Amino acid sequence: MSEFEELKEVAYRSNMRLPELDLVLFTFGNASVADREREVFAIKPSGVPYEELNPASIVIVDFDGNVVEGEMRPSSDTQTHAVLYKHWENIKGIVHTHSTYGTAWAQAQKDIPIMGTTHADHLTNDIPCAPPMADDMIEGDYEVQTGYQIINALKDRDLSHEEVEMILVGNHAPFTWGDSAQKAVYNSAVLEEVAKMAYLSLQINPDAPRLKDTLIKKHWERKHGDDAYYGQEN
Amino acid sequence: MSEFEELKEVAYRSNMRLPELDLVLFTFGNASVADREREVFAIKPSGVPYEELNPASIVIVDFDGNVVEGEMRPSSDTQTHAVLYKHWENIKGIVHTHSTYGTAWAQAQKDIPIMGTTHADHLTNDIPCAPPMADDMIEGDYEVQTGYQIINALKDRDLSHEEVEMILVGNHAPFTWGDSAQKAVYNSAVLEEVAKMAYLSLQINPDAPRLKDTLIKKHWERKHGDDAYYGQEN
Amino acid sequence: MSEFEELKEVAYRSNMRLPELDLVLFTFGNASVADREREVFAIKPSGVPYEELNPASIVIVDFDGNVVEGEMRPSSDTQTHAVLYKHWENIKGIVHTHSTYGTAWAQAQKDIPIMGTTHADHLTNDIPCAPPMADDMIEGDYEVQTGYQIINALKDRDLSHEEVEMILVGNHAPFTWGDSAQKAVYNSAVLEEVAKMAYLSLQINPDAPRLKDTLIKKHWERKHGDDAYYGQEN
Amino acid sequence: MSEFEELKEVAYRSNMRLPELDLVLFTFGNASVADREREVFAIKPSGVPYEELNPASIVIVDFDGNVVEGEMRPSSDTQTHAVLYKHWENIKGIVHTHSTYGTAWAQAQKDIPIMGTTHADHLTNDIPCAPPMADDMIEGDYEVQTGYQIINALKDRDLSHEEVEMILVGNHAPFTWGDSAQKAVYNSAVLEEVAKMAYLSLQINPDAPRLKDTLIKKHWERKHGDDAYYGQEN
Repeated sequence: MSEFEELKEVAYRSNMRLPELDLVLFTFGNASVADREREVFAIKPSGVPYEELNPASIVIVDFDGNVVEGEMRPSSDTQTHAVLYKHWENIKGIVHTHSTYGTAWAQAQKDIPIMGTTHADHLTNDIPCAPPMADDMIEGDYEVQTGYQIINALKDRDLSHEEVEMILVGNHAPFTWGDSAQKAVYNSAVLEEVAKMAYLSLQINPDAPRLKDTLIKKHWERKHGDDAYYGQEN
Repeated sequence: MSEFEELKEVAYRSNMRLPELDLVLFTFGNASVADREREVFAIKPSGVPYEELNPASIVIVDFDGNVVEGEMRPSSDTQTHAVLYKHWENIKGIVHTHSTYGTAWAQAQKDIPIMGTTHADHLTNDIPCAPPMADDMIEGDYEVQTGYQIINALKDRDLSHEEVEMILVGNHAPFTWGDSAQKAVYNSAVLEEVAKMAYLSLQINPDAPRLKDTLIKKHWERKHGDDAYYGQEN
Repeated sequence: MSEFEELKEVAYRSNMRLPELDLVLFTFGNASVADREREVFAIKPSGVPYEELNPASIVIVDFDGNVVEGEMRPSSDTQTHAVLYKHWENIKGIVHTHSTYGTAWAQAQKDIPIMGTTHADHLTNDIPCAPPMADDMIEGDYEVQTGYQIINALKDRDLSHEEVEMILVGNHAPFTWGDSAQKAVYNSAVLEEVAKMAYLSLQINPDAPRLKDTLIKKHWERKHGDDAYYGQEN
Repeated sequence: MSEFEELKEVAYRSNMRLPELDLVLFTFGNASVADREREVFAIKPSGVPYEELNPASIVIVDFDGNVVEGEMRPSSDTQTHAVLYKHWENIKGIVHTHSTYGTAWAQAQKDIPIMGTTHADHLTNDIPCAPPMADDMIEGDYEVQTGYQIINALKDRDLSHEEVEMILVGNHAPFTWGDSAQKAVYNSAVLEEVAKMAYLSLQINPDAPRLKDTLIKKHWERKHGDDAYYGQEN
C-alpha cells in the first residue's frame, strides 16, 4: 500500500467535485493537493475522463515537477502547479478549470471587476487577468512559465496570494488555490459565479460602478477580519 | 425536546428549498420563519453548507436579535431579519439569496422594471433597488442598518411591504418576505425568474416599454383583488 | 368512474411534461386537450403546483367555457382555451407557458424572426407577437379577449392557425396549439428553443438576415410538404 | 442475427450521448458510424425520439446513400453523411446537431473566432461557417449538396478535414466528424462550449483579439504535435 493513499484519495475527491459543480467539460481541468511535510503533491493524470478516474490513477509529483509515484502521466499542467507550490509555501491546493464565464473573461483579457458583496465576501480586489504570455515564454517551458506569469501578475499589482486566491491567465482560463484542496475547489466555483454576475451586471448597466470601498472592507472583514463573525469558527 | 421543534423543522425545510430551486451556491443565502406569538424566529446557522444542515442546527432568535436557543452562531444576516420582523408585524418569513440574475440587477443598481404579466401577477411595481448604504451605516451596525435601508427604500417610494414583498439591496443582493416562510421562498424564485426575463427583454429591445397600467391592474386583481379568480382559495 | 377518465389522463400527462421540459416555474402554465366528439376539453386546475397534480384534479370544460365535471376551479386561462377550440375546429391541444426566452420576446414586443432551419422545420413565418390588448379588451372579459387577440393577430397577418401553431401575446407570454396535446407541448418547447437561438444570433450579429426563402421552403417541405421525407410516417 | 450488430450498437450509443450532453432537443440531431471495410455506415432512423431509440432501429446505409439494412427510413440528413464518408476516406464518425450556441453562430453567419486555449486545444483555426447554399443547390438534391457545401467551404479556405473536424453550415447548424463516432460526438460538445465562450467573450469585450499565433501553435502541439505530451497515449 502506498504511503500516499490518503493524499491520493483527497486529490481524487477534489477532482471529482469539478464536474459535480459544472466547472469542467470532459477533461478540461485538474485539481491537486500538497503534502507540505513530504514536499509532494497529488494531481490528476493527463487526459483521463472524470468518469474513469479513481484514487489509484492519481499521480504523486514533487515540487520540482518530477513524478514520485504513479503509473500514468500527470496532468499537462503539472509544472504550473509545481511552480506555485514551490514559491507559495503555505498553499496546499490548486485548481485549474476552463469554466465557461471565467474563461470568457480570460479570453476578453479583462479583470473581473468587484461589483458586489458576493465578490467582496471572498476578496477585496478585482480578480486579476494576467496578460497573455510573451512569445519566448510560450515557446520555452510553457507550463513552468505559466506559473511564473501568475506569480508575476500578482507581484506587478502588489497583491498577495493569501488575499487573492484566484486569477485568470489571459486567453487561457482560471487558476485558483488555497490552504486546502477543498478551498481551491470552492474558490473555482466562487470565481465562476462572480464572473457570471459581473458579466450580467455590465450587460444591464455598462456604467455600473465598482463596489465602494466601505462595503468592500465591511464584507471582507465580517468574514475574514480580526473580529469576523461569519461562520462557526472564528 | 425543544418547544421550537416545529418552527425549526419549517426553517430547515425552507432553507433546503433554496438550493433545490437553484437560488443559492454554497452558503450564499438564508431563510427564516417567525412565530408571532412567542416573538421569535428560526434561522439558518452561519456558514453551514446546506448538505450538512439539519433541523437541530437551526437557531432561535428574538426580534431584537438575541439568540434564544441553539448551539450554533446564527446567520450573519440575522440582525437584518430581526429588524424586518420587528417593524413589519404581519410578516412570518424572510429569505435572502445571492441568486444570479437578481444579484446582477442589484450590482447594476437598477430597479427591475415591470415588463410583463409574469411580473404583474406578483406585484404592480418595479422591484425596487435600494441605494447602496451610506458609509456611516456600513461602518456602524451593518446588518441592522441593512434592515433600515430596506424599510426606508419602501417608504421613500411610498410602497407597502404588503404589496411589494421583494427588494434588491444595491451592490448586494435580493431580500424577500411574506406571510409564511414558504411564501418568502416562492417570492425569491419569482424575483429571480422575473429578473432574468427583464434582462433578456431589454437585450432584445432596449426600448421595450414598461407594462401598461391596465394590464398591471388586471393581472394583479385576478390573483389578488377582491374578485380574484386565480387558484382554489379566494 | 368518469366518462372523461382517459381525457383527464392525457391532460395530466401533457401538463406534467411542461416542468419536465423546463417550460414552467411553479404554476406558470397550463395544457389542455379536447375531445371533439363530446365538445369538451380537459384542463389543469388553477394554481395547483405540478407536484400536487393528479388526473382526478383535471377539470372538464365545454367550448363555451362552462365547467362540465371537476371539483376544482379550472385554470384562470380557461376562457382563452375555450375561444380557440371554438373557432379553430381542428385543433385538439393548447399549451400556455411563461417560458423564459419566449416570454422575453413577448415583453420586448417583437416577432421572433425566422433565422435558421431549426425554425423553418416547424413554420415558414416569423413567430408573431400579437400586440398588447386594447384597454377595453383588458377591462372587459380579459381571458375571452385574449383568445380573440390571438385569432385576430393571425388574421391581420393573413396566417392560418394550421401553418402557424404558435404565437406570443405581447407583454404576456407564448401560446401554442396543435392536433394533439402532445403536439402543442412539443410546439412550446420548439418555440422556447427557437426564441433562445434567435436571441443569441442577434446578439452575435445584430445585422444577421432572415433565412432566405428557398431554405424556408425546402425545410418546411421536407418535413410537411406533399413529398415529405422526414420521419417514418409520410 | 445481423452482421452489423456491433456497428448498430456503436451508432445507438453515440446517438444517445447527444441528449446526455445537452446537444439535441427532441430529434434535432443524428450521429453515424462507418465500417470502412464493408463500406457502410450506421445512422439514426428519421424522426425517432431518443427515448424510443434502440440498436435494432438503427439503419445501415452505403456510401452512395442506399439503405443496406433496416426497417426504418434513415435520418433525412443521410445523404450529407454519405457524401462526407465517400470523399473523406479516413473519417469514421459524423455528428449533426442543432446545439444552441453553435446554431446561433450559424444563424449569425459568422465563423467562431479562435479566442483562447480551449479552442486551440482542438483546432488552430476559426471554426468555419460555410455560406448558406445557393438556390439551385437548395432546390436540387439538398442533402447531397449540403455535403458538397461543407467540403467546398474547407477547400475554399485551404483547410484539411483532418485538422478541422467541425464546421457550421450557414443558417443551419453544426456538423462534426472524426476517426470514430466517439470523437465526432466529442467534437460536437467542444464546438458548443467554444461557441458559448466566444459569444460571452465578445459580449464582455467586443474588441477582444483573436488568440496569438504562438499560443495557438503551443496548445495544438502539446496535444497533437510530434512531441505531444497531453493524455496517456502519445
